[in-house]
Amino acid sequence: MKAEIICVGTEILMGNIVNTNAAYIAEGLAGLGISCFYQTVVGDNDSRLLELFGEASKRADIVILSGGLGPTEDDLTKETVARAMGQNLVLDDKAWKQIQKFFEKRNLKLTDNNKKQAYVPRGAKVLYNKNGTAPGIIAESEKVTAILLPGPPGELRPMWDDQVVPYLKSLSKEAFFTEMVKICGSGESFVETDLKDLIDAQSNPTIATYAKTGEVHVRVTARAENEKEAHKLVKPVVKEIKKRFGSKIFTTDENVTLEAAVMQLLNENGLTLGTAESLTGGMLTSRLINVPGASDVIKTGFITYSNKSKRKFLGVKRSTLDKYGAVSEQCAKEMAKGCAAASKSDVSVSLTGIAGPDGGSEEKPVGLTYIGVSVLGKIKVKKYLFSGEREKIRESATAAALTLLRHCLLENLTERTFA
Amino acid sequence: MKAEIICVGTEILMGNIVNTNAAYIAEGLAGLGISCFYQTVVGDNDSRLLELFGEASKRADIVILSGGLGPTEDDLTKETVARAMGQNLVLDDKAWKQIQKFFEKRNLKLTDNNKKQAYVPRGAKVLYNKNGTAPGIIAESEKVTAILLPGPPGELRPMWDDQVVPYLKSLSKEAFFTEMVKICGSGESFVETDLKDLIDAQSNPTIATYAKTGEVHVRVTARAENEKEAHKLVKPVVKEIKKRFGSKIFTTDENVTLEAAVMQLLNENGLTLGTAESLTGGMLTSRLINVPGASDVIKTGFITYSNKSKRKFLGVKRSTLDKYGAVSEQCAKEMAKGCAAASKSDVSVSLTGIAGPDGGSEEKPVGLTYIGVSVLGKIKVKKYLFSGEREKIRESATAAALTLLRHCLLENLTERTFA
Repeated sequence: MKAEIICVGTEILMGNIVNTNAAYIAEGLAGLGISCFYQTVVGDNDSRLLELFGEASKRADIVILSGGLGPTEDDLTKETVARAMGQNLVLDDKAWKQIQKFFEKRNLKLTDNNKKQAYVPRGAKVLYNKNGTAPGIIAESEKVTAILLPGPPGELRPMWDDQVVPYLKSLSKEAFFTEMVKICGSGESFVETDLKDLIDAQSNPTIATYAKTGEVHVRVTARAENEKEAHKLVKPVVKEIKKRFGSKIFTTDENVTLEAAVMQLLNENGLTLGTAESLTGGMLTSRLINVPGASDVIKTGFITYSNKSKRKFLGVKRSTLDKYGAVSEQCAKEMAKGCAAASKSDVSVSLTGIAGPDGGSEEKPVGLTYIGVSVLGKIKVKKYLFSGEREKIRESATAAALTLLRHCLLENLTERTFA
Repeated sequence: MKAEIICVGTEILMGNIVNTNAAYIAEGLAGLGISCFYQTVVGDNDSRLLELFGEASKRADIVILSGGLGPTEDDLTKETVARAMGQNLVLDDKAWKQIQKFFEKRNLKLTDNNKKQAYVPRGAKVLYNKNGTAPGIIAESEKVTAILLPGPPGELRPMWDDQVVPYLKSLSKEAFFTEMVKICGSGESFVETDLKDLIDAQSNPTIATYAKTGEVHVRVTARAENEKEAHKLVKPVVKEIKKRFGSKIFTTDENVTLEAAVMQLLNENGLTLGTAESLTGGMLTSRLINVPGASDVIKTGFITYSNKSKRKFLGVKRSTLDKYGAVSEQCAKEMAKGCAAASKSDVSVSLTGIAGPDGGSEEKPVGLTYIGVSVLGKIKVKKYLFSGEREKIRESATAAALTLLRHCLLENLTERTFA
């Protein structure tokens, strides 16, 4: 079964808002094993929408549209699609009653425009809207099924979850299973090279790689008559990928981030973490603290941007700063050591580097970064050279710190040095 | 002049990532007064991309594509577009050298895949990539101009700003002038209401509002035969907007962020800043430190996530924590005071709140946040209730802290309390 997504709205076309509806619907379709080969955004324009819907109807079995169901004149998605499908609009009493209630509840004055929202194509399934006025619509014809949804995400998402997904499941004979293998500490081209034979041989399951800052994600997707069978097809491929990348794989769960994987590692082993950030200035700690339950692991972080504060709060030696400078292996080491002590943490991570655009030199260029990790007193420092603009360098350094931290934790875990 | 946007990537089509590139490009085109009637997303699929590019070429003068320029097997945007335009790919030595340097710098092993990225259509303008390996491409033919950009936003955005925008400006006979009025501390619906008469009356210049977290941006764009004339049309509208929003406007420069405006305010007045973050966990400081030259203003930041660390590093009283709790006006006040003292800073900002999903209560719900600002010993604390998921709450709190900090600085500046 093939579906296609059309988002209607000048505000998306002008870049006023990011099109999160398309991503939400697309992810939902992927989860249902429904193929989607096109997403299109078009303005509130009758002729362009008419033509686009026509093309989509030729390409897909189901066309899902969002937006343009509002009460105003320029909202024309429903009218245009109904015309394209040769269906008349009739008043849906229940929808009209709900709209009236919606306005009463809020002591808002009902205008004639609002009644427009209660009209639906004759014989269509009406998706009543708990969170707004515009009802959604499922209109079927021999040629195509059109699913119309309101634009506001707060209305579209619950309507999708509660009413559209069950409808789509009832149509599908095929089941679908997908697993996301997330790798840190390897570039995309490496991963691609290491998986070339699998990717070249792919048909079912399919394999796709996605590059993220400091990570590569490999999606393995299989289809079968039921989920159990699809899972069976995915399993050996994921097993093979695991064999090739070993501990560089930090999760196979789509929803687990690198910071969450690191936090879990700390949590499971009852370890607390302290951070000492210079060039990243809190970016690393912020990512870690975004993981729910962070308070069990992280008590204190230091953002020591000046030499003075590196000395005062982390006990970095003045002689170290004089002799090697703040961006040096020695400084990163003393930062990690001092951070663990000052924050009374089992584990600590330190970052010092040159984010640019200024401050670089022949000997110490912009992007030069040292990251230190201390696990129960055992300290490792690694040197990096990141490129790009200031923010990109800081993001790369943050990702690298998470990767090194995880690496050092695993190293010590396997050495069973933990109580 | 008409443009069309095609974003290539299975990860967008599958809903793995939200299509922020389309919004960024669309906003840029709007600012240049270039019409865009379609945005399309298609997977890394040769035949579908070929067909889509063909349709777009008929509808538009310029087709802007993002994604699919990577080194991997399934990256085929460049190959497909070149074939559609009947152009051969040739090795660009400069691009190839840059890619080799990129890998040397990082001590990474170059794979055969990487050389693929250095091939460009014969005669095309090459947009060299400061932030990654894939060069962008501008390929012209009588029929259409294709602009190919890398998918990662960290590479696409600077390439767009620095190289594509000047190119697009050079094409247009008409001149455009655009000014971006950035407002903090007002919701979008308020801004739109306050500007309704101007927006309804708009033709040239046009007025568009963009909602960001804690900010609203109002873009005023005028069209004329030369930039001077266009500027003349923009001026009175911007003046009127300034009159209506006054000090809530922190810049009219597209490239100035809220954090940059705050840092400039501190810098100009020779003030140093200390930060004390609990729920935001470094997010505020990280944003501030992303501003070049931050080291002149920020020396130290404290991420005090536990009560103990609030007491130890900021001198928050145990009795305060016992009586009022960590998420309280009193705690925020003591955090700001203690932070200024411990970091020896003229100005300090403190955040404490409940990011969720757990930890909320009837009396103190998730999203409850107190932000404190101390300017030369004068402390102000404000209470907020943010909604959304954990990350959204933390982002809203960060934006609110920047807004309150700016507000307090302006208040004190006008009172001339500075030495």
